[in-house]
Amino acid sequence: MKAEIVAVGTELLMGQIANTDAQYLSKKLSELGIDVFYHHVVGDNANRLKKLLETIIDRCDVIITTGGIGPTQDDLTKETIAELFDLEMVIDEESNKNLYKFFQSIHKDITSNNLKQAYFPIGSKILKNDRGTAPGCILEINDKIIIVLPGHPRELINMFENEVMPYLKDKSGYVIKSKLIKIFGIGESELENRLIDYIKYQTNPTLATYASAGEIALRITSKAKNQHEADILIKPLITKVEKELGDNIYSVESETLPEVVCRLLISRNKKIALAESCTGGMLSSLIIDISGSSKVLDMTVVSYSNESKINNLRVSEETLNAYGAVSREVVFEMAKGIFNISRADISVSISGIAGPSGGTADKPVGLVYICLYDGKNKFIKKLNFTRERNYNRKYACLHALDMIRRYLLKCL
Amino acid sequence: MKAEIVAVGTELLMGQIANTDAQYLSKKLSELGIDVFYHHVVGDNANRLKKLLETIIDRCDVIITTGGIGPTQDDLTKETIAELFDLEMVIDEESNKNLYKFFQSIHKDITSNNLKQAYFPIGSKILKNDRGTAPGCILEINDKIIIVLPGHPRELINMFENEVMPYLKDKSGYVIKSKLIKIFGIGESELENRLIDYIKYQTNPTLATYASAGEIALRITSKAKNQHEADILIKPLITKVEKELGDNIYSVESETLPEVVCRLLISRNKKIALAESCTGGMLSSLIIDISGSSKVLDMTVVSYSNESKINNLRVSEETLNAYGAVSREVVFEMAKGIFNISRADISVSISGIAGPSGGTADKPVGLVYICLYDGKNKFIKKLNFTRERNYNRKYACLHALDMIRRYLLKCL
Repeated sequence: MKAEIVAVGTELLMGQIANTDAQYLSKKLSELGIDVFYHHVVGDNANRLKKLLETIIDRCDVIITTGGIGPTQDDLTKETIAELFDLEMVIDEESNKNLYKFFQSIHKDITSNNLKQAYFPIGSKILKNDRGTAPGCILEINDKIIIVLPGHPRELINMFENEVMPYLKDKSGYVIKSKLIKIFGIGESELENRLIDYIKYQTNPTLATYASAGEIALRITSKAKNQHEADILIKPLITKVEKELGDNIYSVESETLPEVVCRLLISRNKKIALAESCTGGMLSSLIIDISGSSKVLDMTVVSYSNESKINNLRVSEETLNAYGAVSREVVFEMAKGIFNISRADISVSISGIAGPSGGTADKPVGLVYICLYDGKNKFIKKLNFTRERNYNRKYACLHALDMIRRYLLKCL
Repeated sequence: MKAEIVAVGTELLMGQIANTDAQYLSKKLSELGIDVFYHHVVGDNANRLKKLLETIIDRCDVIITTGGIGPTQDDLTKETIAELFDLEMVIDEESNKNLYKFFQSIHKDITSNNLKQAYFPIGSKILKNDRGTAPGCILEINDKIIIVLPGHPRELINMFENEVMPYLKDKSGYVIKSKLIKIFGIGESELENRLIDYIKYQTNPTLATYASAGEIALRITSKAKNQHEADILIKPLITKVEKELGDNIYSVESETLPEVVCRLLISRNKKIALAESCTGGMLSSLIIDISGSSKVLDMTVVSYSNESKINNLRVSEETLNAYGAVSREVVFEMAKGIFNISRADISVSISGIAGPSGGTADKPVGLVYICLYDGKNKFIKKLNFTRERNYNRKYACLHALDMIRRYLLKCL
């Protein structure tokens, strides 16, 4: 099957956002064995969208549109597709009901422009939107498939995974099985070097590295006639990768690092307490992202200032003066402090210079200390990051999570 | 002038990277008053690239291509353009010399495939590449301008700023001025309803709504012969919008809500302290995202459990038992507790049911209480979110930030 992706939105043509939807969809379609031949972006302009669709409709099997299905005047994707195929726009009663329900739930009157979100080209299969007000739709017409999705990535991804993926799997005729192996402690290029033979020469299953926002992963993908055959193809490669990478692998079940840490803490019936300085609550927030984390996080103190470290974490003024807030000594006193205040079994503290200012020759921007303490043993890690403030903070949190993971697995 | 951007590269169609080149170029072209009507992405395939160029060449004045000008076999952008216009490919002696010089400097023999980077369609103006081996070029032919750039962002940006920007400024004759007005407290569709006349009928300046990741904004854009005239066109519309939306506007200077809150706290010399339950440190982290926030955040306690609320925030057990952790009474005691522990002027507390579990008929998932306390006055906000865990937590934080903003502006 040949596909083209059409993004609709003037904000893309103005450069306000990058077309990450097309990237996401391309990755997914490639996993499904569907070839993507072109991406296009067009503004919120019905004429130009129609012209574009006319140009491409004959040469491909699947068109996926993103954006232009919201409540506003310039949201015209569905209307333009209806016009192209000379189809009536008809109301979908369930979508209509859901819209009314949603506005009731937020105690607002529904405005008339919102109702257009319940209208679709006649014959459409409706795609539910759990994360926004505008449903998508699939239209099968003249041997072509038109898939209409929202533009917001969080709505689009959710809708694609839940509704479009199964639909396209069905159409494509074979099964693609994909396994994500999550890794911490090895960089992407080292990873590639260590597995280069599999990455380069193996065709089914394939092995690819994958890096995004602090997560490094390997994706093993096999293509077969059924689920069972696809599984059989994948298994030996997983074993080989596990042997090569050992405890640098933190999940073969698509879990995130916070999910793994919460799962391990729950299974070992342990609670943690956190003392955060430069990360400012981000580590705590990453853990509380996980539903059920109330069982494992006893408490967090964010002590950004020296005063707060002294008053709230009982760090001694002498230690602060002698070594500075970003030091092995202070990060240990922070961990001891929060350990004693809380009723946790393990405490973790972070202190660092996130940047852009605050660095010195001795202690440059990006210097971070992390301490894990269990009442008896302390483990201190010194890191030197080299990027911008939020990258440094995010990576400090990931390192802290990985320290907790390795501690619980007795491989710290 | 009408422009289209054509990216060439199979890695884009595979979803390995996002087309950030198109975003960058769109922003720049918009600043120059050049309208971008479409983006396209095509793989490293000469046939499909040629077909695409044939389709678009008649309808636009400028085509900018990115990528496909490197040394490898599948780099075919220049060759395809030459074929399209039936032009000879000729060597550029200076580019050729630079290539030899470069390979000498890295002590490597130049391979023959590298030499193709010195060939261009006859009549091209050559664009020097300070950051890579492949020069770009500009071709003026049949009243059209074709600009050929490298795909790697650091090479492209450098070449565009140094060589293409001055060239296009000369050609376009216009200036575009754009102003982003950030809004909290009004939904996108209500916003559109209130400003529909401007959005629908006004052409210069234009007004458009814009929503992404919890931020709602209006963009006002004018087009004029110079910066001064563009400013004069924009000003009256800003005034009208400010009158209509009042204190729902939190920035006309593209600031984020945490930035505005930090700026206001610093200018009023106030410190805050936070007590977070369901948001788990996210509010704290959003504030510490802002460089310089050490001046305004005194401390944060994340007290997710009842025990932690009692032990660390001095919430009374009776209040917890009588009203439950998610209640007006408890959120107030949390705010009082952190206020008394800290040396802050203002405290903010959040308690809620983020979901997906934990809800009851009385207190459904999405119920959140926020309290702001200044030692004398308390302000409590009750919210009912209807989406998933992380959306609820993010929005609770944004509402808390907006409460701080309005408190400081005396309009809470």
